[in-house]
Amino acid sequence: MGRDHAVVAIAGQIGVVASVALNLAALAFYLHGRIFGASAGEKEAGKKMKKAAAVAPSSGKPPVAPDSTINLDHGDPTMFEAFWRGTMGEHATLVIPGWQTMSYFSDVGNLCWFLEPGFEREVRRLHRLVGNAATEGYHVLVGTGSMQLFQAALYALSPPAEAGPISVVSPVPFYSSYPAVTDFLKSGRYRWAGDANTFEGDEYIELVCSPSNPDGGIRQAVLKSKSGKAMHDLAYYWPQYTPITHMLAHDIMLFTVSKCTGHAGTRIGWALVKDREVAKKMNMFLELNTIGVSKDSQLRAAKVLEAVADAYERQPADLTGDASLLFHYARRQMTCRWRALRAAVAASGIFTLPDEVAGFCTFAKDTVSANPAFAWLRCDKEGVEDLEVFLREHKIITRSGTRFGADPKVVRISMVDTDEAFGIFVDRLAAMK
Amino acid sequence: MGRDHAVVAIAGQIGVVASVALNLAALAFYLHGRIFGASAGEKEAGKKMKKAAAVAPSSGKPPVAPDSTINLDHGDPTMFEAFWRGTMGEHATLVIPGWQTMSYFSDVGNLCWFLEPGFEREVRRLHRLVGNAATEGYHVLVGTGSMQLFQAALYALSPPAEAGPISVVSPVPFYSSYPAVTDFLKSGRYRWAGDANTFEGDEYIELVCSPSNPDGGIRQAVLKSKSGKAMHDLAYYWPQYTPITHMLAHDIMLFTVSKCTGHAGTRIGWALVKDREVAKKMNMFLELNTIGVSKDSQLRAAKVLEAVADAYERQPADLTGDASLLFHYARRQMTCRWRALRAAVAASGIFTLPDEVAGFCTFAKDTVSANPAFAWLRCDKEGVEDLEVFLREHKIITRSGTRFGADPKVVRISMVDTDEAFGIFVDRLAAMK
Repeated sequence: MGRDHAVVAIAGQIGVVASVALNLAALAFYLHGRIFGASAGEKEAGKKMKKAAAVAPSSGKPPVAPDSTINLDHGDPTMFEAFWRGTMGEHATLVIPGWQTMSYFSDVGNLCWFLEPGFEREVRRLHRLVGNAATEGYHVLVGTGSMQLFQAALYALSPPAEAGPISVVSPVPFYSSYPAVTDFLKSGRYRWAGDANTFEGDEYIELVCSPSNPDGGIRQAVLKSKSGKAMHDLAYYWPQYTPITHMLAHDIMLFTVSKCTGHAGTRIGWALVKDREVAKKMNMFLELNTIGVSKDSQLRAAKVLEAVADAYERQPADLTGDASLLFHYARRQMTCRWRALRAAVAASGIFTLPDEVAGFCTFAKDTVSANPAFAWLRCDKEGVEDLEVFLREHKIITRSGTRFGADPKVVRISMVDTDEAFGIFVDRLAAMK
Repeated sequence: MGRDHAVVAIAGQIGVVASVALNLAALAFYLHGRIFGASAGEKEAGKKMKKAAAVAPSSGKPPVAPDSTINLDHGDPTMFEAFWRGTMGEHATLVIPGWQTMSYFSDVGNLCWFLEPGFEREVRRLHRLVGNAATEGYHVLVGTGSMQLFQAALYALSPPAEAGPISVVSPVPFYSSYPAVTDFLKSGRYRWAGDANTFEGDEYIELVCSPSNPDGGIRQAVLKSKSGKAMHDLAYYWPQYTPITHMLAHDIMLFTVSKCTGHAGTRIGWALVKDREVAKKMNMFLELNTIGVSKDSQLRAAKVLEAVADAYERQPADLTGDASLLFHYARRQMTCRWRALRAAVAASGIFTLPDEVAGFCTFAKDTVSANPAFAWLRCDKEGVEDLEVFLREHKIITRSGTRFGADPKVVRISMVDTDEAFGIFVDRLAAMK
């Protein structure tokens, strides 16, 4: 192969350019820390790490200082770390002996033979507790994050390649990874076809992300053809982000621990699938793509979900001040951050945000406002043609609206990073005139 | 989509039919256990599980009895469990606090930003100890098993889709997953083109599996075009399976803990990649496919590899009787099993196996014989046209030679299952006339 050709081909793919940019930004960010030196806290942590085993775990992105570049491009849910370092920590510790779960198989009697039974049980239990999705009569599948399950569903819902690729659509603004992940292998089974609102045809797979990544809006399928298929990405349909108004019961519903409990590094998602044949084909994708899913992470996710549900069972959920109730804790954090962001936007005067919406939450048993995991920030100031570039000049890394099928005057900003990073971000934003 | 069409399309794919057959066989196998009841040991284990948390881990395939169906289709490396239950167990226990490694990121300064530094360190250390592959000047990438890295390498080595799909080849008998995994998404970037020995052309990706899955042979690339690319799958290039004769230094080398230490359920593989641009493109695949790799499993794999290397550093490697030396322990097991298999084949008289080969192993510092992870068993008895079917009648599940590009008179049989399953298998084989 010609290497130059390959580079051009790759650079032409949506998502990849941004990924390279992210890596460069991350590198700059990292070097900054190296050059400006470690804080006393970091040095202390470094000493502890040396004392620990050689396989000391990573600690994620380096800590930020007031003059750091703040990376809010990914929705890296590090906000949740403080919760799990608190009183709940001990309930979620996982111990794995060297001989455990060595087999490829978890349950040879299950359609999803690599699914840990304990994980499935905790998934069903959590949905019963929260009331956000029906599980009765559904098959549970586990994936290496929900985006692997998204690809499994594309595989399961697409017709044979001989029929030509089926169109994959989602209403603008759509999650930026949908086009990139749909098209990166140039599959003959499916191909990205853009905005669902302008799509014409009866054969399609519509991706419904609700609450929406990037803008937090509640969505329903916009296309109504009988032969069309829909897949519901419900990564953010949890009480900390939005009122739980309905127990959803769609054909394919995708979830992930990343946004539910904050364990993104664990790479565990799950799908609730109504139809057995679709579930079997999705499972086949998971077999061919990765021969199943990490059992260590399934056990960890199970332990974490168990700790969440146990805490709610130990005490009534209306003790909102309690630091052991994940959804209540995270909702307070998100409410506080959205207040701070709206105050910063008001102080600055050059930005706008989507209107605040509220609804009756069957989980909280109260009317509550939505606190999306991302801010969809717009700037109509004259001279600011590209908001991502403008914010990067202020050392804030965000994701341009153009990646979501929208215009460059809007960006997506993570609302779930650390307190330190979020604090520096809103302070800088408030000062922009 | 038409559901019937989709079923036909799926059923037409290599690997999928067998997968369904496997699931049926596994189900029968499982139901057998249910009907015939649990042993005292199982009942004891069941009691212990109830006492443990709700997220008690799975225990793999159910135990076998003398009349059970024995499933040796997959190379499920449960043989290794006894080693990790022994004196080494305590050194490989992993503890993960609830707040650990929650971020997507492990090291923002690394090309592979989701690679746990402790895992990378242990990978390099193990290769230095064993001497099977060069690591100096190589990039280390982590994958959800080595087959995800195989797909990442196809993505990285293939030209832009506009140039048409590149041919992916491997000499017969090739690993049965190569065609299935290459073609299941009908990628416009690459397509399966079969036997490398009969391939004509200059543009290709050749898959070199050495020692070979299925037949254990030592392989080198058979095609020599300057513009062709090769990828080396070295899953079985460890001292328990074959003499380590060279420190290999190919452009792309794939490994997995599944076959090295037996931790298949952990789903961790790694790639050693010489070229930085290729490593970057492989990493891009891993970002788009699963947004990185489970950190819990990376930490577990690191802990396990660390325990292996520590044991060798604590004492000289020539103490071959020591149960703490993984490669010595596993070699003894494999040697014993191959003797038992050859004796059973001799007792039966209707089967043949590849000739035994030996070589000087730089790790063992001795001339040792190869003990492949699979037996490539042939039967030339008149009337036995399909050996897989013949063995299934004796309740032994194997994988037909036809899946590997060979004929139906040969099958692949796992040599790394439990002692119990292996024992029943050789007893049955010896009795076949």
